[in-house]
Amino acid sequence: MKFVRWGEVGAEKPGVLDANGAVRDLSGVVTDIDGGSLAAMPEITPDALPLAGDVRLGPCVGNVGKLVCVGLNYADHAAEGGWEVPSEPVLFMKATTAISGPYDPVILPPGSKKTDWEVELGLVIGSRAKNVGAGAGAAHIAGYCIVNDVSERAFQQEMGGQWTKGKSYDTFAPIGPWLVTPDEVEDPQALGIWLEVDGKRMQDGNTNTMIFGPAFIVEYVSRFMTLEPGDLITTGTPPGVGMGKSPQVFLRAGQEMRLGIDRLGEQRLSVRAP
Amino acid sequence: MKFVRWGEVGAEKPGVLDANGAVRDLSGVVTDIDGGSLAAMPEITPDALPLAGDVRLGPCVGNVGKLVCVGLNYADHAAEGGWEVPSEPVLFMKATTAISGPYDPVILPPGSKKTDWEVELGLVIGSRAKNVGAGAGAAHIAGYCIVNDVSERAFQQEMGGQWTKGKSYDTFAPIGPWLVTPDEVEDPQALGIWLEVDGKRMQDGNTNTMIFGPAFIVEYVSRFMTLEPGDLITTGTPPGVGMGKSPQVFLRAGQEMRLGIDRLGEQRLSVRAP
Repeated sequence: MKFVRWGEVGAEKPGVLDANGAVRDLSGVVTDIDGGSLAAMPEITPDALPLAGDVRLGPCVGNVGKLVCVGLNYADHAAEGGWEVPSEPVLFMKATTAISGPYDPVILPPGSKKTDWEVELGLVIGSRAKNVGAGAGAAHIAGYCIVNDVSERAFQQEMGGQWTKGKSYDTFAPIGPWLVTPDEVEDPQALGIWLEVDGKRMQDGNTNTMIFGPAFIVEYVSRFMTLEPGDLITTGTPPGVGMGKSPQVFLRAGQEMRLGIDRLGEQRLSVRAP
Repeated sequence: MKFVRWGEVGAEKPGVLDANGAVRDLSGVVTDIDGGSLAAMPEITPDALPLAGDVRLGPCVGNVGKLVCVGLNYADHAAEGGWEVPSEPVLFMKATTAISGPYDPVILPPGSKKTDWEVELGLVIGSRAKNVGAGAGAAHIAGYCIVNDVSERAFQQEMGGQWTKGKSYDTFAPIGPWLVTPDEVEDPQALGIWLEVDGKRMQDGNTNTMIFGPAFIVEYVSRFMTLEPGDLITTGTPPGVGMGKSPQVFLRAGQEMRLGIDRLGEQRLSVRAP
């Protein structure tokens, strides 16, 4: 299944794609695509549901409780930033208020000179996970989605050492377009993952170069905090961020990002001034 | 007013203290003490409400959207940890699933050897705050509460540099007992703040040695993320954490923490094995 949330900003309804890729209205079945419905989704037949029409797609998960991020999870991305490859996952959090839709604008913060992109594979949690045993992480994953971990590098790296400030501005976490269930993804560590700015390919990787895979990440994070249905974990970015280019390049108002992951769709995001 | 949440874990009801300090039931007036009610609290006369009886107090705010933390905000605490005094606030986040009540047990994580205490002044947000102008931060504060920013120092400092892992375990954020409105606090930067372990005074400070005050902190955080009603910001700890002692001391199962801030009440927390 490919679940979506559609409608006006802040009032999105649940939906699902049918066999033709059209949005069907799920609001007669569940109230939202969120922790509640992901933990207990009834059997559905998408093609039997009402068509939603030509609608805006919002963030593919609602009421996200926590947005946990793995840093430096592609060896070649760590190298481009000049960091050591970590021996275990680096974890930090983005504010959930940063979440926006897959075709919404990304708004630069006032004073930003170093806003950068990071296409990432996101994991959506489907069941409560605390101190999960070895090998049991995958069972807690309800699905996968694209996350753009938009990052202001000056705020992230030049203002005290903790990354939160550079990761949390509104619109810095476009998610979706789809929440894709594991059966349709098959191997999450064999997916092409890429990002373009104004048509120029900046990131062009494959999740097969991730250091820590999705199942282990769930297991690992669950040692440090309890994961709940509807929580979202994003798993790090491949090489090609603006900070890693020589010379460095950052986003400017008026540009457009286009990014995708095999089987998970594409985002298109215009960059706007504050 | 002193607002509380009372009843069974996970099913707390809203309450308020009356003139005698007894808990009155607010559930006929608002559904919870959270972002919704804090943004629009009706006029209430506590002594006219039903008595709740002898009840457990839970976390004094429900449905906390974000738990944002200021690090190293007391110059003498920065010194005891060997850190430089920051020129602007250091920000990080705790998982909201870490929140627990003011008399609940603190559970050590499996394998923990360095779980430590941090008594802090918490700010509860009452209205949406984004890019707040200079001097306008205080108006967004709905009230104050005690936060114990429980921290596993090995997880925080020896596992990759970002602090999230050491800050987020379940029960690592006891809050309350009361959410106290600003009129009853008067000057939030003139409050005694202390913590004892098994009756031994470990922290004994005053909020008048904070580097960045509450109003400025709200203004500052709002540059990096949008604060919403019911969000909680904790403002750093005075000297006396276990990590800063010589030799270092950390919490052991069976110990009891008692901590308080003038006008905001006291917490009593037993420490338990995993």
